[in-house]
Amino acid sequence: MRKTLVLTLVIALILSIQFATAGEHTVKHKNGIVLAMFGTTVEPALQGLLNIKDKMEDAYPNTPVRIAFTSNIIRKIWQKRAADPAYVKAHPEVPYEILHAQGPLATIANFQDEGFDTLIVQPTHIAPAEEFLDLSAYVKALASIETIKAKFKPFNKLVIGRPLLGTFGTTHPYEQDIEVAVKAMKEDVERAKKAGAALVYMGHGNDYFPSGGSYLQFQHIMDESYPEVTTLVGTVEGYPPFAQVLEVLKERGINKVVIRAFMIVAGDHATNDMAGPEEVSWKSMLEKEGISVIPYLHGMGENDEVADIYVRHVADAAADAAIQLK
Amino acid sequence: MRKTLVLTLVIALILSIQFATAGEHTVKHKNGIVLAMFGTTVEPALQGLLNIKDKMEDAYPNTPVRIAFTSNIIRKIWQKRAADPAYVKAHPEVPYEILHAQGPLATIANFQDEGFDTLIVQPTHIAPAEEFLDLSAYVKALASIETIKAKFKPFNKLVIGRPLLGTFGTTHPYEQDIEVAVKAMKEDVERAKKAGAALVYMGHGNDYFPSGGSYLQFQHIMDESYPEVTTLVGTVEGYPPFAQVLEVLKERGINKVVIRAFMIVAGDHATNDMAGPEEVSWKSMLEKEGISVIPYLHGMGENDEVADIYVRHVADAAADAAIQLK
Amino acid sequence: MRKTLVLTLVIALILSIQFATAGEHTVKHKNGIVLAMFGTTVEPALQGLLNIKDKMEDAYPNTPVRIAFTSNIIRKIWQKRAADPAYVKAHPEVPYEILHAQGPLATIANFQDEGFDTLIVQPTHIAPAEEFLDLSAYVKALASIETIKAKFKPFNKLVIGRPLLGTFGTTHPYEQDIEVAVKAMKEDVERAKKAGAALVYMGHGNDYFPSGGSYLQFQHIMDESYPEVTTLVGTVEGYPPFAQVLEVLKERGINKVVIRAFMIVAGDHATNDMAGPEEVSWKSMLEKEGISVIPYLHGMGENDEVADIYVRHVADAAADAAIQLK
Amino acid sequence: MRKTLVLTLVIALILSIQFATAGEHTVKHKNGIVLAMFGTTVEPALQGLLNIKDKMEDAYPNTPVRIAFTSNIIRKIWQKRAADPAYVKAHPEVPYEILHAQGPLATIANFQDEGFDTLIVQPTHIAPAEEFLDLSAYVKALASIETIKAKFKPFNKLVIGRPLLGTFGTTHPYEQDIEVAVKAMKEDVERAKKAGAALVYMGHGNDYFPSGGSYLQFQHIMDESYPEVTTLVGTVEGYPPFAQVLEVLKERGINKVVIRAFMIVAGDHATNDMAGPEEVSWKSMLEKEGISVIPYLHGMGENDEVADIYVRHVADAAADAAIQLK
Repeated sequence: MRKTLVLTLVIALILSIQFATAGEHTVKHKNGIVLAMFGTTVEPALQGLLNIKDKMEDAYPNTPVRIAFTSNIIRKIWQKRAADPAYVKAHPEVPYEILHAQGPLATIANFQDEGFDTLIVQPTHIAPAEEFLDLSAYVKALASIETIKAKFKPFNKLVIGRPLLGTFGTTHPYEQDIEVAVKAMKEDVERAKKAGAALVYMGHGNDYFPSGGSYLQFQHIMDESYPEVTTLVGTVEGYPPFAQVLEVLKERGINKVVIRAFMIVAGDHATNDMAGPEEVSWKSMLEKEGISVIPYLHGMGENDEVADIYVRHVADAAADAAIQLK
Repeated sequence: MRKTLVLTLVIALILSIQFATAGEHTVKHKNGIVLAMFGTTVEPALQGLLNIKDKMEDAYPNTPVRIAFTSNIIRKIWQKRAADPAYVKAHPEVPYEILHAQGPLATIANFQDEGFDTLIVQPTHIAPAEEFLDLSAYVKALASIETIKAKFKPFNKLVIGRPLLGTFGTTHPYEQDIEVAVKAMKEDVERAKKAGAALVYMGHGNDYFPSGGSYLQFQHIMDESYPEVTTLVGTVEGYPPFAQVLEVLKERGINKVVIRAFMIVAGDHATNDMAGPEEVSWKSMLEKEGISVIPYLHGMGENDEVADIYVRHVADAAADAAIQLK
Repeated sequence: MRKTLVLTLVIALILSIQFATAGEHTVKHKNGIVLAMFGTTVEPALQGLLNIKDKMEDAYPNTPVRIAFTSNIIRKIWQKRAADPAYVKAHPEVPYEILHAQGPLATIANFQDEGFDTLIVQPTHIAPAEEFLDLSAYVKALASIETIKAKFKPFNKLVIGRPLLGTFGTTHPYEQDIEVAVKAMKEDVERAKKAGAALVYMGHGNDYFPSGGSYLQFQHIMDESYPEVTTLVGTVEGYPPFAQVLEVLKERGINKVVIRAFMIVAGDHATNDMAGPEEVSWKSMLEKEGISVIPYLHGMGENDEVADIYVRHVADAAADAAIQLK
Repeated sequence: MRKTLVLTLVIALILSIQFATAGEHTVKHKNGIVLAMFGTTVEPALQGLLNIKDKMEDAYPNTPVRIAFTSNIIRKIWQKRAADPAYVKAHPEVPYEILHAQGPLATIANFQDEGFDTLIVQPTHIAPAEEFLDLSAYVKALASIETIKAKFKPFNKLVIGRPLLGTFGTTHPYEQDIEVAVKAMKEDVERAKKAGAALVYMGHGNDYFPSGGSYLQFQHIMDESYPEVTTLVGTVEGYPPFAQVLEVLKERGINKVVIRAFMIVAGDHATNDMAGPEEVSWKSMLEKEGISVIPYLHGMGENDEVADIYVRHVADAAADAAIQLK
């Protein structure tokens, strides 16, 4: 199987080469995709990320896809694990690329160093907020590097794809992205409906960025699209807080909820902050109010329709930049 | 009175000069403030802007304050009016600087051309959304101009202040800014309370930028701070829509509201979209539902406490950049 | 004549409008040219600049051309003169646009404010050195301003033309530009030849930028192209210094020279540093060595072939950016 | 010895950590140096580079120094060699870091990924020309990356040092840098003097960048400083060409020269273009004219005084940015 992978990769690299003229001489452009996420240290949660990567590779079999973890802390933990033979032996399911994941700058730069000068950076972010803007700042700065001879420009094209709930601008109105995301949530609605429960999502949120609008507009369109089930979104940080979710549940006399992390992976926040046994977990706090809780511990990336959205966001970013992915 | 103004200005210019060394020789730095707003063509609405300007000039008597209108369409209307002697004669209350207002680029550049190399651009925006990000892009680009000799750098310092509801980042957490704004709304709460009405704000909103979070978090903190009055925010464009406001009013059986534009001036949106006689105005749509409506046609800039917030945002931007305003 | 000018300008503005789609709606693009020079306070020297402007306007009758002076000191002197009615009356030959010349930032910004969003900034610089790089920094920064809606981007296109002796990069190899400039110097060679003299150019030079290569390569190609006359270039500042010019003259036993400023205008440097009566002028120092001196006090801009080169550099900058000048 | 190296490195890393506050919390800043050169495939030529690296490590024993090769072609050759066990075995003198050298982007990014957020990029360039400006563009772009939370900014400080002959700007006037370089050439002057020969340097030069001024000003100051020996500089590409060197040699009746590459390493240009047996080598062309030639096949980096200059340029870049190297 490893051999096949290597062979596939080699063929992919060959086929992903495009020819183009860049001033002085013909430069062979090579495409690549960087899948950037915050990162997680919870091994089973990786499935949310790897599923998106698989879909991406199925869609563009001749374009290498690499993973970047933006969190310095999470990368450090993987570095320790990678250096620990016992850990590596005990976790054959963790791929090499996770054990050795780098930040977005190094991932992009090493890709470029190997000759991949046409890159799409696709975040797995949910909302267009702090992390997405930070990553956009990296991409914009790198894409701005000009050289005196055009052929030495490090990047032919370097662009960024949209988060799940879209982003600013008129090319792809974010409201349409929310509508598409809402459609992909049907499985959660079905789950809640069967259980006779409301659906509660735990978004990440941010104390220093007003990202609540994306979550609440998503909630609003969920309500319009699935009036049969009450959907509520709260956040770990910032606004809308859990207290607001609880208040509405109580107002409406709801006594049963399905809860799921509105995050790409069901990592630490899902297992602890949302569904953990501590008193301050959402589960504990809901149960204390007499609401019975059905946690669904799967990251959004495990939902194939969500994974497909990220694949389409890559396709859009490529099309907008006239990059032909193969 | 004109003479006094000129004299004051001259003294202001002299005093606003700061001395500093910029490499090769001593450069005299001069401070200025640009007050940037979308603009309005409704003459009485100008009061919302001019009140902020007055407060700014009171606070920093030795720092000239200039107005920029970001809207191309609105500037063109003023240009036509300025060229029409009949209009000018009929409107002595409209100051020269409004008749001849320029966009932010020209306003900043002309300021710089006159030797003001240390500028604070203070938007009168409510939320950190499209217009604020666009203006930030101007400021960031202009501030990035470097020259081979430091003394020829066009700007010593060029920074931007925060909108009313704050912006991203940790230096001035936006939630605190919302709390401060909420305090300034007390007069509206009193007005609604006296009338036994709910308080409905019409924010601008945006179809292409998820700014709803700022408005809804503001609404949330209004609710917490003033539980005695129901506060709801809807937007002209995008999310949260008027329909959502109406739904809540009906749910709660509210039959009387005070409505006010959550915008710096009570211009076209306030007089027409909000309180106009057309069927699609908020007033008409509310009345159709049997809700009686008390419009309050004053821009937020006419609220002195709001105006003071913008003055403080200028002070913060100056302090963060080690600019000493006088 | 004034009326005709105004009429021509009005027609020019109308015709210079191009239609193009910019995302959300059709934006009318309007072209303009900014002619940027250091500036001069010597009235007759203005002819070097105004000749280039005339040629530019002849070539693109429907594109307004505006002048910017980059020197803060020179602009201040003109501002004083403009404010002095006696001066204005005594100098009817000085056009309004010179009396009120602004720096490049304000000139570009005011152009933009009037709706000209497609601009070519053409410096009248000789060499690609400090001033050209500084101006390029302005242009690059302004051109980089992006807005969330494409239609609000301040500049559709904003580009810079090359100095007389070209600049870095492969699109227009600078050596070819030097060759073209050398051809345009034929009139100086003829002048020197007739007088049985060597030809000495006074370039500006720079203590803080190694611009000597452009001058010496120009001198080298002059030598190859016109072997019948010795051409030497020295600079006011930096390298190659006058001392080196003098040394070669003495080595070769030359006792007669035509001297001319290798600058766009024959301003202060030409009249004083080059041909003035002071002991340290080049003329005085040459005469002290027994070399007879024929000063030619005309800026390079007065040479029609040189003026035409700047017109072509505008044409090249436009063509490279797919701007259709009319 | 390897163990000592590893130990030294580990201690270096620990000591190079500086503590500083970056807004939200204390970030440990770590310093590093990137030594960026074009690259060479000639093994013995590496000594010119490695000598500079050694000096750098001696000067800052607690700051790791990494090598980057800017040439894509040269990196590819090393990659092939690194993948060829026979080559690796046959060349134990080639260090791992050369076999696996990356471009400047990847070198800087990987450094950053390991936590080194305070970097000085020191080019080994001779003149401030194409390669230096390109590298500066990389550094400027990377240094411009801002994040919403200051603590996530990828680089605390990222600056670039000056080439041997200095660069634009007033902080370190380039003429002084040339003077310092001229002093370091004393050994070459002595060599030529002993041999009763002129001294001819082969600079690289550039067809698309007017870099000749740096070389000729260097030559000028060599002449002033060492009048006893004629020094001439020609370039492989562009101006001043070999033909000009030859012309002067013939004019002055010089029949013996010491030739040396004015490049950091004595690589392909030195061994072939300068001193090779082909008809078009400088040696062959000079000998054809009856001039006897003494090639000196050592890169400038092998001259300890030159290596020390690069160390000082790192020190200056650090001091200018308030970085404390240890």
